[in-house]
Order: sequence, then C-alpha cells, then structure tokens
Amino acid sequence: MGIVLKGATVITAVDSYAADVRLEGETIAGIGADLSQAGDAVLDVAGCYLFPGGIDPHTHLDLPVGDFSTADDFASGTAAAVCGGTTTIIDFATQNRGETLQAALANWHAKAQGKCFADYGFHMAITDWRDDVNCAMEDMVKLGVTSFKLYMAYKNVLQVEDGVIFRALQRSREIGALIGLHCENGDVVAALVRQALQAGNTAPKFHPLTRPAAAEREAVSRAIALAEMAAAPVYIVHLSTAAGFRLITEARTRGIPVYAETCPQYLLLDESRYETEDFSGAKYVMSPPLRRPEDAAMLWRGLKTGMLDTVATDHCSFNYAGQKDRGRHDFSKIPNGAPGIEHRLGLLYTYGVCTGRIGLNQFVALTSTNAAKLFGLFPRKGTIAAGSDADIIVWDPAPRTTITAAGQRQRVDYTPYEGFELAGRVRHVFLRGRQVVEGGRLKESPCGKYLSRRSFTGKGGGVCLPSF
Amino acid sequence: MGIVLKGATVITAVDSYAADVRLEGETIAGIGADLSQAGDAVLDVAGCYLFPGGIDPHTHLDLPVGDFSTADDFASGTAAAVCGGTTTIIDFATQNRGETLQAALANWHAKAQGKCFADYGFHMAITDWRDDVNCAMEDMVKLGVTSFKLYMAYKNVLQVEDGVIFRALQRSREIGALIGLHCENGDVVAALVRQALQAGNTAPKFHPLTRPAAAEREAVSRAIALAEMAAAPVYIVHLSTAAGFRLITEARTRGIPVYAETCPQYLLLDESRYETEDFSGAKYVMSPPLRRPEDAAMLWRGLKTGMLDTVATDHCSFNYAGQKDRGRHDFSKIPNGAPGIEHRLGLLYTYGVCTGRIGLNQFVALTSTNAAKLFGLFPRKGTIAAGSDADIIVWDPAPRTTITAAGQRQRVDYTPYEGFELAGRVRHVFLRGRQVVEGGRLKESPCGKYLSRRSFTGKGGGVCLPSF
Amino acid sequence: MGIVLKGATVITAVDSYAADVRLEGETIAGIGADLSQAGDAVLDVAGCYLFPGGIDPHTHLDLPVGDFSTADDFASGTAAAVCGGTTTIIDFATQNRGETLQAALANWHAKAQGKCFADYGFHMAITDWRDDVNCAMEDMVKLGVTSFKLYMAYKNVLQVEDGVIFRALQRSREIGALIGLHCENGDVVAALVRQALQAGNTAPKFHPLTRPAAAEREAVSRAIALAEMAAAPVYIVHLSTAAGFRLITEARTRGIPVYAETCPQYLLLDESRYETEDFSGAKYVMSPPLRRPEDAAMLWRGLKTGMLDTVATDHCSFNYAGQKDRGRHDFSKIPNGAPGIEHRLGLLYTYGVCTGRIGLNQFVALTSTNAAKLFGLFPRKGTIAAGSDADIIVWDPAPRTTITAAGQRQRVDYTPYEGFELAGRVRHVFLRGRQVVEGGRLKESPCGKYLSRRSFTGKGGGVCLPSF
Amino acid sequence: MGIVLKGATVITAVDSYAADVRLEGETIAGIGADLSQAGDAVLDVAGCYLFPGGIDPHTHLDLPVGDFSTADDFASGTAAAVCGGTTTIIDFATQNRGETLQAALANWHAKAQGKCFADYGFHMAITDWRDDVNCAMEDMVKLGVTSFKLYMAYKNVLQVEDGVIFRALQRSREIGALIGLHCENGDVVAALVRQALQAGNTAPKFHPLTRPAAAEREAVSRAIALAEMAAAPVYIVHLSTAAGFRLITEARTRGIPVYAETCPQYLLLDESRYETEDFSGAKYVMSPPLRRPEDAAMLWRGLKTGMLDTVATDHCSFNYAGQKDRGRHDFSKIPNGAPGIEHRLGLLYTYGVCTGRIGLNQFVALTSTNAAKLFGLFPRKGTIAAGSDADIIVWDPAPRTTITAAGQRQRVDYTPYEGFELAGRVRHVFLRGRQVVEGGRLKESPCGKYLSRRSFTGKGGGVCLPSF
Repeated sequence: MGIVLKGATVITAVDSYAADVRLEGETIAGIGADLSQAGDAVLDVAGCYLFPGGIDPHTHLDLPVGDFSTADDFASGTAAAVCGGTTTIIDFATQNRGETLQAALANWHAKAQGKCFADYGFHMAITDWRDDVNCAMEDMVKLGVTSFKLYMAYKNVLQVEDGVIFRALQRSREIGALIGLHCENGDVVAALVRQALQAGNTAPKFHPLTRPAAAEREAVSRAIALAEMAAAPVYIVHLSTAAGFRLITEARTRGIPVYAETCPQYLLLDESRYETEDFSGAKYVMSPPLRRPEDAAMLWRGLKTGMLDTVATDHCSFNYAGQKDRGRHDFSKIPNGAPGIEHRLGLLYTYGVCTGRIGLNQFVALTSTNAAKLFGLFPRKGTIAAGSDADIIVWDPAPRTTITAAGQRQRVDYTPYEGFELAGRVRHVFLRGRQVVEGGRLKESPCGKYLSRRSFTGKGGGVCLPSF
Repeated sequence: MGIVLKGATVITAVDSYAADVRLEGETIAGIGADLSQAGDAVLDVAGCYLFPGGIDPHTHLDLPVGDFSTADDFASGTAAAVCGGTTTIIDFATQNRGETLQAALANWHAKAQGKCFADYGFHMAITDWRDDVNCAMEDMVKLGVTSFKLYMAYKNVLQVEDGVIFRALQRSREIGALIGLHCENGDVVAALVRQALQAGNTAPKFHPLTRPAAAEREAVSRAIALAEMAAAPVYIVHLSTAAGFRLITEARTRGIPVYAETCPQYLLLDESRYETEDFSGAKYVMSPPLRRPEDAAMLWRGLKTGMLDTVATDHCSFNYAGQKDRGRHDFSKIPNGAPGIEHRLGLLYTYGVCTGRIGLNQFVALTSTNAAKLFGLFPRKGTIAAGSDADIIVWDPAPRTTITAAGQRQRVDYTPYEGFELAGRVRHVFLRGRQVVEGGRLKESPCGKYLSRRSFTGKGGGVCLPSF
Repeated sequence: MGIVLKGATVITAVDSYAADVRLEGETIAGIGADLSQAGDAVLDVAGCYLFPGGIDPHTHLDLPVGDFSTADDFASGTAAAVCGGTTTIIDFATQNRGETLQAALANWHAKAQGKCFADYGFHMAITDWRDDVNCAMEDMVKLGVTSFKLYMAYKNVLQVEDGVIFRALQRSREIGALIGLHCENGDVVAALVRQALQAGNTAPKFHPLTRPAAAEREAVSRAIALAEMAAAPVYIVHLSTAAGFRLITEARTRGIPVYAETCPQYLLLDESRYETEDFSGAKYVMSPPLRRPEDAAMLWRGLKTGMLDTVATDHCSFNYAGQKDRGRHDFSKIPNGAPGIEHRLGLLYTYGVCTGRIGLNQFVALTSTNAAKLFGLFPRKGTIAAGSDADIIVWDPAPRTTITAAGQRQRVDYTPYEGFELAGRVRHVFLRGRQVVEGGRLKESPCGKYLSRRSFTGKGGGVCLPSF
Repeated sequence: MGIVLKGATVITAVDSYAADVRLEGETIAGIGADLSQAGDAVLDVAGCYLFPGGIDPHTHLDLPVGDFSTADDFASGTAAAVCGGTTTIIDFATQNRGETLQAALANWHAKAQGKCFADYGFHMAITDWRDDVNCAMEDMVKLGVTSFKLYMAYKNVLQVEDGVIFRALQRSREIGALIGLHCENGDVVAALVRQALQAGNTAPKFHPLTRPAAAEREAVSRAIALAEMAAAPVYIVHLSTAAGFRLITEARTRGIPVYAETCPQYLLLDESRYETEDFSGAKYVMSPPLRRPEDAAMLWRGLKTGMLDTVATDHCSFNYAGQKDRGRHDFSKIPNGAPGIEHRLGLLYTYGVCTGRIGLNQFVALTSTNAAKLFGLFPRKGTIAAGSDADIIVWDPAPRTTITAAGQRQRVDYTPYEGFELAGRVRHVFLRGRQVVEGGRLKESPCGKYLSRRSFTGKGGGVCLPSF
C-alpha cells in the first residue's frame, strides 16, 4: 500500500542516479530496483527528475503593513509554493513593539493554522529587546522556533541597535539558535530618503539611490564583526551585492561561521528596472533593491563555489493596483517587497542549471538541502533518502512555459518575472507521501503541518565540488 | 543471493540516515527498510557507519628512484589501502624522457596487473613534451587516463617549462582531461639546494629551508594564471601552505576552476619534525615539506568550507634503513616521500570528524566523493546509491587503536604517524560486492580491476554546507 | 637682525642637505650658504639636524572628566611639548550635551588663552547633533576650526549614531572641513563592560578584554563606508590594529580619501602591560587599548609605506595616585588616557629612524608635515622653506637619555615609557623665530598663539618613497 | 656671478613656496628672498613654477633591433628630453649573448659619449648569465651602474630563467644594487604568438591578444615572490595592469620592498587604439601593450596614493614608415616600442595635475625625486635645495599647445599622442647651472655628463600625503 515512483532519476545534493523510490505512509521506505510490494501503486515517471521538496526559508505571508496586508495569505501563498515545487516554507513571525515573543508566535500560528498547502515553520523577528526577550528566546527554541531575525534597517520601525544584535547573538549561542540579519545601514538610508524627499525626488527610481550598495556592504561587515565578537554563527538574509559577498567569503576563510542567502531577484533582475519615468518601477521596490549586473554575476559565482548557501524568495507580495500605488507621490510609502514563491525552482533550474552556472546537485542543495540543514529540518526534509519525509518533486525537464501574471497562482496582480521563459516544470508533488499536485494541478485541501524545528548545531556539513 | 548490510547508518557526502543496504552482484541494489530477499545473506552491522569506499587519488607504488624502487609495490600498497578503507587508488604513470606516453602506460599496467587488492586507475605524468605528446594525450583519454600531471619542481628531472604547462592545459580543455600540477618553483629550490650544500648544510633539516613556503605560493599563483589564460581547469596536488590556499580561494571566487588536494601530513604534522640533530628528520623529507602549524590550521579551514576538494596521501614509501639513508651525508639524496595509504581515513576521521573540524558528510566528500567526481568515476564510485559499485566500508566508531610501524600493513619500516591514536576502525570492506576485509583482516586474493575513467566535464557540482 | 643657524643638516619630508638657515622676524628668510647679513646673530649648530617644529594633532589638555580634570593644563602640557620638539598642538574642544559649538569653543579658548608655550588650534568634538549644529559647523570653519571629531564609542556619553556621523560627513564636504572619528563599536564595548562587571571582573586587565580589536576593525569599516557614501574625506584617529590598517589600505587603493593617525603607545607598547595582578595596569587604561605585537609591527609598516599619515599622542594625562585609582574596584571608572606629548619625537626618532623602520624624511612627514597639510597649516607650519614660520627644532643626535617620570616636564606622576632609552635630543627650539628652548631648557614665557586654520582641500599631496 | 631666478614658486616633492633661487657654478647656492649678489644675473620668472629637472629612468636610445636601430639616438633623444623638461636619463645598456657586461657598458658609453644634451646614466640588462656575470655585477656597481634589468619575456631572445633572476636578486643585495624586471610571462606569450600566426592572425590587433593582462599579473606575482625569497628589493618596470598593481600594494603592505614604474602610455591610452583594420595599430605595438581604461584608472590611483613610484617613458622610437612596417604581414615582426621622452612632463602635468588626479608635489616626486632616490642620484638630482645640482625647469603654466608629430623634436615620424592638448610648457631649462633651453629653444651644444650613480640603500624614504 505504498507508492512506487518508477523510472526517474533521483537527484540529491550530491547524487544523480536512476532508481525507483517507494513511499509508504509519510516517509520514503526504499530506493533501488524492483521495490514494489503487493498493493503498491506504481507511478511511471520515466524521463523525470525526482527532487527533494523545495524549502523556502524566507517568506512573508499575511504580513500587515499599516492598514493593509500582503496580497498573499498562508492559503494562497502555500498553494502557489507547492505548485512551484516548494513543500516547506519558513515564514517570519514578527514581534510588535511592546509585544511578547509568545504573543507574536501565537498571532502567526493563528494566521497559518489550517490554511497551508505546504509544511511550515517560523522564524521570530525581534524588534523590541527587553530583558524578558532574553528569556523568551529560549521558550521559542523549545517551541521549535530555532531561528531569529533582526533588522539593521528600517530606522524607527524594525531597526535595532548594535547592542541588541550583539546580545541576541550571544544568547543564540547559548540556546542553539541561529540569528538572521537584514543587512543595510538604516541610519544612512533614513538620511538619504529624507534628503531625497526634501529635494522633491519622489519617484520609484529614487528608492535604489537611497539604499546604496555600500549600505549593505557596511552592514554585512558589521554583522560579521558582531557575530565574531559574540562567537556565534550568523545567517545573512537576501544578500544582494558583490561587495557583501566578498566579505562573507573572507570571513568564512578565516573560520567565522557566516551563512548567506540570496534570492532569484538579485540573480536575474537588475537596477535598470527602475529606469522608467512612469510608476512601474514600484514593482521592484524591495529592500535591498536590485543591483548592477556585476553583482548578480558575483552572486552566481557564490552559488557555484558553495560560498552562498540558500536561494530563498523573500516573497512579500503587494498588488500594483491598490497597494504599491500608495506611494505614487512618495516612493518611501510604496510597500516594500515582491512576489516570487511560485517560481523559485523554475527560475533557478532554467537560469542556473540549464545555463551551466550551477549543477543539478547544487540546485537541490540551494533550493532544499542547505535550508533543511541550517534550520533544523534535516534529514526529515531536504533529501531523498530512506526514512526521510516523502516530500518529492517529480520534475519534467521537457516542457517550456512562460511566466505571466495572468497565469500565476500567486494572488497578486503582477510578477517581476513577466515574460521570463522557463525550462522544465513540476509534474507531481508529494508532501509527506500524499500527492498534492498532479499534472501540475493542486489536488488537495490544505494539509500542511507546523514544523517544530530542531536547534542549530552547526554540524550539517557535507561539502562537495563546485561546478565549474 | 544478495547481501544485506543491516542496522547501520549510511553516510554519504550529504546524507546521514539509518537504513539497510542490499548488495547484489557488483552493485548496490537497494537502500531502505525490509529489503531482504530470499537467499540473501544478512550481515548485522548495527552501530556502524557505512561509508562509500575511499578513493586515494595520489599514490606512487612501485616507483623507481635511481637504482631502487619505493618500498611498496601495487600488491602491498593496495592491501594496506583496502585494510584502511580505501578501495580505489589512482596512481601516477610517469613518462621517462624520450619515452612515449603509450609506453609509459604499458609499463605501469605491467606493474599493477593482477596484483591489486583495490581498483585502480592512472594519471599520466608528462615529463618530456614533444609534438607527439600532444596527440598521445588524446589516446590516453580514450584509454581511460583522463588526467595528467606536470611538475613545476625537480629541475632537470621532472620539471617542465611554463610553455609546456600552458600547452598541456590548452590541450586538456580540448580533450576533456584535467591537469594536476606539483606547485613549487623548481628553479629557486635548485639554487637554494646548491647553496646549502656548498655551505656544508647537508642534514635533513635543510630540506625544508631549501623549499620555502613562498616557492609553493609562487607556483600556485603561476598555475592559476596559466590555467586562467588557457581557459582550462586545473588541480593543485598536495597543497601545503596557507598562502597557496588563499590564492586558490581568491581564484575560485573570481570563477576560475581551480581544484585542490591536500594530504594528512600537511594537516597533522609540522616543520618541528625536522628540528633534530640526528638523521631522523629524513622520515619527513617529502616535497613539499611539512609547514608551520598556522598552515595546517588554514588547510583545515579549507576542508571545512569546501574550498579544498580532496585529501590524498601522496603515498610514496621508502624504508628509513637502506633507502632514506642514501642521503645521510647529503639531504638532497634522500628519496622524497612518506607512507600514508593505510591511515588516511583513520586520521581524517579521528582528527577531523571527532574533533569537530569537519562533519561526517564532509569526511566522505573529502575521502571519496569529490575524487570520484573530479576523476571520472562518479557515480560508479564515491557514493552509496542504488546502482553504484558496491564499494562499502563498514566503520565501527567504537575501537581505539594506535598507529605503529610494527603494526602496519604497509611494507615500509616506519610511519610518520608513529604513536598517533585513532578513533574508530574499518570492520568490513566490500569491493564491487565482494567482501575483501572481514573483521579488519584481508580475506581475498587480489581482485582489483583497472578503471577506465570518463573524461572531465566540470559538472560534478553538489555543494552543501560548511561545517562550523 | 636675523638669526643664522649655521652648519646643520636641514631635514624636510623629502630633503636632507647641509645648509645654513636664516630666520628674520617670525619666518624663514633664506636657506643656503653665506646668508649672514650685518647684525645677524649666528648660532653654530654643526652636527645637528634641523627639523620643522613638530605638530601634535591630538591632545587633550585641561579636559574635565567628572569632578576632576586631566593632570596637564595648557601651560604644563605645551611647556612639555616644546621641550620635546612639538611647537604646535591641535587640542579638542568638546561640546557638552545641550551646548552650542560656539560656547564650547569659547570655553576652550578661555582655557588656553595666554598660557601656551606652543602655537595651538582646536578641533571641535560634536556630541549632540541638533539642527543648529549643522549651521554652527560653518561658523567654526570661519573661526579657523576646520576639523571636527565624532565618537563611535563611549555609549551614552560621547557616542553618536551613524546618522549623525553621516550628516556631519556630508556637511564637512560642503564647508571644507575634515571629520575625525574615534573608531570603536561602543555598543559592543558597553555590553562587554557590563557583563565583565556583573561577573566580578573589575581589574584593569579586563579593560582590553572589553574592547576587542574586532570592535575597532568594525568601526573602521563603518567609518570608511559612511565616508564613501557621504563622498567626504575622513581621518581615523589613534588607529591601533592591523585589521583596521588593512581596511584603510584597501579603501585608499580604491580611491577613498581615508587618512589615519596612530600614536607611539600603539607602536611601542603592547597588551602584555595589562598582565599584572596589581592595579598598575591602570596606567595603560586608554581607548583603544594596547594591542598585540603583531599589530604594532603592521602599524610600523603602515608608517614606512606611507599608508599611515600622522603620529599623534592622544596625550590625556591622569595621575596614577588620586585619579587613575578612582577605578581601583571597577576598571570602567579608571579615567581613560595616558601622557605622551613630551616624548613623541624622541620615541619615533629612536625606535623608528635609528632602527631603520622609517627614514629621517618620513620622521619629519609623520611628526609635522602631514599634519600641517591635513589640518590647514601648510606651508606656514610643517616644513623648513623660505617664507614659512620659523618653527625649527635643532636636534642633536648624539646624546643618550632615559625617560623617567621623575625627569619629565609633563605634570603627571608616571609615564608609560618609564625606562625607555632615547637617542638624540632637542637642543634648541624656535617658535616663529623666537628661541623658546635653549640647551634643552625652556627659556620663555608663554608666547603661543591661536592658529586659525585654513579649510581642507585634499590637495596637499607630495608622495615619496617608502623606506624599506 | 651667479644667476638668480626671481619671482617664481618653488615646487619640490613636498613644498610649494614663493622664493628666489640663486645658482652659482653647477649647484644651487641659496633659496629665499633678496639673494642677489653683485654680478649676478637676475632672470625674472614671475608666474612660473620651478621644478627640479626631470629624470627619465627608462629610455632606449640608439638601440639596435635586428638590422636597424631606434629612430632616436643619444643626440636626438636627449635634445627632445631637455626641451620637455627632462635633464637626466637612465638608459639601458644591454648585454649581448656571449658578451661580458664590461663590453656591453663600453659599447653604450661609445654611443652616448659627447652626444648628450642631458646628463645620463646606465642600467645594465643581463641576458646571458654565466659565472663571470656574478663577478661583473660588482664591477658595474663600482663603475656607477647600480641597477640591472632582467627580462621575464622575449623567449629565446632576452628572457632568462627564474633561477637567473633569483641569483641576480641575491647578488644585488650583496652589492647594493637594484634589479628591475620586465614582467610578462614570455612562455605564454610565445605560445600565443605562434598560435595566432598559425591561425593567420597577423594584424597588429593580435599583438595585445597575445600578451594578456594575466601574463603580466603572473610575472609580477613571480617577481615579488623571487624578491621575497632572495630578500632583495625589486623594481617593476612599465607596469600596465590593475591586477599587477594590486599585487604590488599587497606586497608592500606585507613589508616587501617592491617599487614600481608606469608610463604615460598606460595612463593615457588604451587598447581601443588597436581596434583598426588598417596597419596603424602598429604605432602602439609595445610590450606590455595598452590595456583597458579600468587599468589606467587604477594606475592613476596608484600614483595618487604613493603606491607607484615613478613615471618613465620606455622611450623606444621606431618610424612608422620603414621600421614599424617591417611587420606589415606579421605583427610579431613589428619592432616593439613607442616614443615619449619629450612629452612626459607635459602629459603628466596636464592630465594629472590639472585634472586633480595628483598634486603638484606628487608630480615632482613622480617625474624626478623618486627616481633620484631609487637610482642613487639624490640629493644631487631630484630636488631644489641648497647644494643640489642646479637642474631646474622654469615651467610656465599659462600656454596651451598641442602635440603633433610635425612639431615634435623627437626624431621619429609619429607620436602616439597626436592631437593631445597640453597645459603649460617648459620656458627655460638649467642643467648644472647652465641654461640649455631658453624660451623653449635648445640653445646649447651637448653638455650632458655620465652620472656614476651611488649604490642602492633603500633609505631614501620621505612619505607624504596622497592627494585625494
């Protein structure tokens, strides 16, 4: 009474081989030849790849921003995710000023509960450091929230002082957690934004000019130094610059445990998107902003050489009409963020694997395995191995499709990748042994579960070859 | 009529999970639970790790040096290898001046044929570039010799000019081969050796003084530049210095396909071994020589961060009595090299994994997977996956042993690791499904086969997390 | 009616040549042979060097700290300065919170007026940024205060936010001023100090442990980034670490105008001074603290290669008895600082020039010329050339003396250089043509004048050779 | 009976001040106000700058190449030099294979003797290392030839092995000499040239393609390593690449005494000059070739920050008609080199000083002072100071002129700077007190003398501020 996936090529972060995979209950029972047992269903997937279900460690679903929320909630967002091959997300629960972490977590559980088509976990964003937070961090770890995030940007809103970051890092080491940092110098950004607006520079194209690459580089440098002094590991979210990447490489070479994430938008789009006289640049108003093509080239090399660890989306969708246009006369009022949860695997496969920039195994490492290892989900998630959760993507490399807002499942009225062609597509998706996508179509009601994650150990290693 | 290894934990370069492994014929038939079929033998290996058979990509067996040869030939060397967990070696066939590559290969085939307890392949060392060599390289690739080596050291013996290296690199790109380089500036070394001897400095301790770290760094820099100009990948053998490592890191970050190997001796021993007034420093006379502890620390960081790819031995054994002492009155006459083929896995497991410097998955990557990917043996060798050769090490982590010359299987009268304690040991070894070691004892006659290797594609990627 | 200095060797930042120098009134009238005119006094200074009067761009005289002030005021401090060969100082006027810059300047003028034996100028330390400060900066420039200082350390006391630094840098560019920065991450220091005291670690040796090198490196990195984003030059005061130095070198190579100062204590003393069980480590409690010998070695190389610009003292003297001992039971209450104004030239000459670490011309550049160029005093000060102020040190290279607290002129009860031997000494000193030191003895009443400095142009170049 | 230059501004590598300068005999007698003595001639030079006479440390006059020689000999070349403000040249005597250094020096003395309008010295280029060369080097030093050059390029012609370079460096340290190196990997260049010609790529535009930037970077890296291992200083001639520059900066920061020279062509021209279908690219066929604009930008920063030491010309003039066109059908037969001796000061003043890239003092350091210090001529040459040789350029900053082949004094039929506008020009030139140029016109017969140079001490320091 299992399911046998027959005839495909299994791809893990290291291996590529032809074998059948047998699922039983929620897990993978066996891999090899002639595995079928009586009563098994056999699914012919010849010519396809089997990937471990994708893990997107950076999403913002149902996030309130002022008097409205992101276009996608946990239902629409995770539906889009699984259709695109992502079976696990880690979203950000965010503490409001004056709120306890416990209350923030409860708030986010309420948003997600019963609505998810993918499994999900939470990071906790700390915005208000008080003595009780120090204790509450340990509670979070016990509740399976083993990673935290702090902001070096968003002055007077989310930004915290260096002293807070330093103490949170020290604390994370004690409790086995991993701190993620948004690296931009918020003081400089705030000053530049104010100066731009005073000068009447209100169009979207002034967004990137007020968030220069040097503001990220500075913050990455500071993040590394704080982590080094706290003797704690650190995870840099949504890295966008070559300069920041070089600092990370240099720190790792010195033995400092710095991990880093980038996103498809920093790999595939660039600052030329802002060069328009109309308001359409607002679609790309996100922080950090899009950068130069040279930055993207360096980030690709970072993926290739294993010096960048994950590709997440920072999915944070706002409709162009009705939401983004709140900032029509003041770019600083444009809600920050862009959609992407649906197309992460497709984009990285097409523009990474098919172009030779990365190998198939690296593709798996970057979209799934490394996130699982960093965030306490491995080997339950992140690989195709006996005993692991049967989260499997059946990937058909043959089809060619095109990304359009009209055709997407994300509940937002545009996509930054409009017109991008994709090679290959998700045919079937299994989540803990249950087929949730069939022939590209969502076929299930929400069955995603909350994932209580294990603490961070830093022992997830497994380093293979770069793909030159 | 297969064999089921039951109850162990499978370790690959990425995965760690409890599962049974079923071998059938020469390959792995399946991995999972309840795999036994009628007639299978079941071997209880509970509490053990299963590693893919080790691959040592740098050995010198039956190597003539003047009027004698290395202490180990292919029989004794490969017997020691399999007992230590290495089921595949890649030895160096070396062209003599005036000889064709074809003749050199035939020569080495004759040495190995029928004597090997491990599977084996050959790199070809080119020492005499002529126009026919250019053509012969392609013949070698057809015969499964898909990697070559050139020497930047050993002036007037093995050393070739930059122009030869450059043309060989250009050629390698055309034919899908990988060039390995011995990186030391042989001109400087030759001058320093001559000056030392003229000054009456004849003791072994002058060996390292005549081969300074800067001579390696210079040659690594040149190797990278030549590879970059030839637009070809390159593999740096036996890297010994932090300075060389930094250059490799910098080059990879720029996107240059530079791979690198180090050896246990550069990780675990240091230049203080030469500081003795008697002749015993001769045991450590190898090229490059042992370096400072800071160099070793940096190389460990290179393993951890995935910026070094392989740990080989450069096994080249000479007896202290009767061979090393040919240089008693002139260090330059001491045959260069030291044994190590037997203890590679044990040393790296004990001083790498058990100390937390690297993870278990990295251990597998460094001792097996990466070499398989670089040298055209993957996925036949280098992993535990359905369809791969059933080369499996059953590793018992419990025992504690001590390395001694008296107790070693290598046919040489000393070991540089005398007195080193080891954690864990090889219990059983399977080579293509055949048990060649049982309870630590060699139980078979030589059954190793020549491996015709596939060409180099540079597509072996699969990059996971560093282990901090 | 001039004075002719006869028979010495003139040393400037570039030149070394035998010539007579004729002073007339306050300036240098001519240099050459046979310059005497009727009525001239001729002073035989054969065998001596003539140096331009030293400029110490970093002193703290009559500085209040809580309920007491530094041991030296402007009278005792400048008397010590001229006896040691320093004829110009630039002291720090410091804004109190809530105070205007104008009031702060008036305060400091009152302290100095009529008391100084050396010429003097002021930097202005901004501690409380308000909108009126933005305007007041321009007033300062008009009043000859063309440089400002901000603190990245001293949380809740002197420390300012990044946004303030950024705006001050932007402003400095508009008004032709130069911003100096104290580079240590004050947030981290504050956290570490609190943690140390909570743990009962109250002895002086915990001072350096709570101000790690990485806290300086981080702040230097941030300082450079802020300057780069503001497109303004920046001057790093009292650099103490190799890591900070490397960042400065890297930035200059990229074309970022970063200037840097170090002090004799960071060149000649190291952290071993804190390793004592008694309280005497308090003598070295200064910020940044003393570092490792490797840091000092790198700073010396920075002087040699021209990548460091000035050697100042950060003279800030507190008596060991009665002042330093306020922190006997809490190192954080030890007033920060150490004396040095008197021995700057002697130490740099003895341990720099005489050891071959720097050349004689570099000695002049580092003690005088570069500060004059950076701080708007050149060519009035900083060189020996026709038309320049006749500030001249007659330096006798022959004598050997020893630094002792008992023998010093500084009005403080200890010296960090107790027992240091000096080669050479000041024989005579001329300040604007007037002999203020004769045979090593102060011979004048206070005749120092306030120097209204010119604005910063960044055009002071004049790059010569490193001294290897 | 002296000469007084009245009313100008004296510019040295550090100072800028208004003063009169009095010359008497061959030297400078005094600097100041009211220096005239009875019988003096007074020359009104109000509004002008006085620079120390320029020193060009890299020229090739009367150099035989195959069956012809450079277009300029010592007469025409030095006439052009003095008219352009260069009063001293250091030319390259070159050993022929099989020849002694003594014979080579005699040969070059014969070429220069009695023909020079500027003072002159010689470097010795060693092309054929034999044991007697080792001894002959010391003879050269005694004869005032205290610098040598070796070639890492020009395979089979001038190129020497690393072992020769290493031994020459070791020797230079013993005898107080400085080794200059031409840094390009000649092996790679030779291979690329052969391959280009075999492929029918014979046009001038293939010249730069066969001498890639990486070939220079590699050789610079090797040069530094060889110098470091020999513990000797080294001087990199005609640096052309940013990559090479970065290596030099890094080495100097580590304390390695590496000096470097660049040339106006690498600062002002770029590789686009080769992009022409006709043969005119031959005008720019020199080695190393012209590079990318980014390289030039980095070299300018090197001048600004004092990390490059000298600007020489590598003047090596061949007529376009009759000489360059020997390679019309084979770029490898185009004689390498271009003219420049006449316009060095004008170009660096116009495109360096007037654009703000460097300061006036740096201009003097780069065109005169630093070369004097490096090559044993200081303070006789390289400065304006009492006692120095009266080699003075009276520079009128007002005129605007344009470089044309028609208007140049160099005896060659083209200039690579055709059409370049110049700001300022030489009005008068004094060589050892004798006026050799008046109102821009050569007014003397050849009066240049051979300069026996002092040995290299590395103590010439005098480091001032970069000019940002």
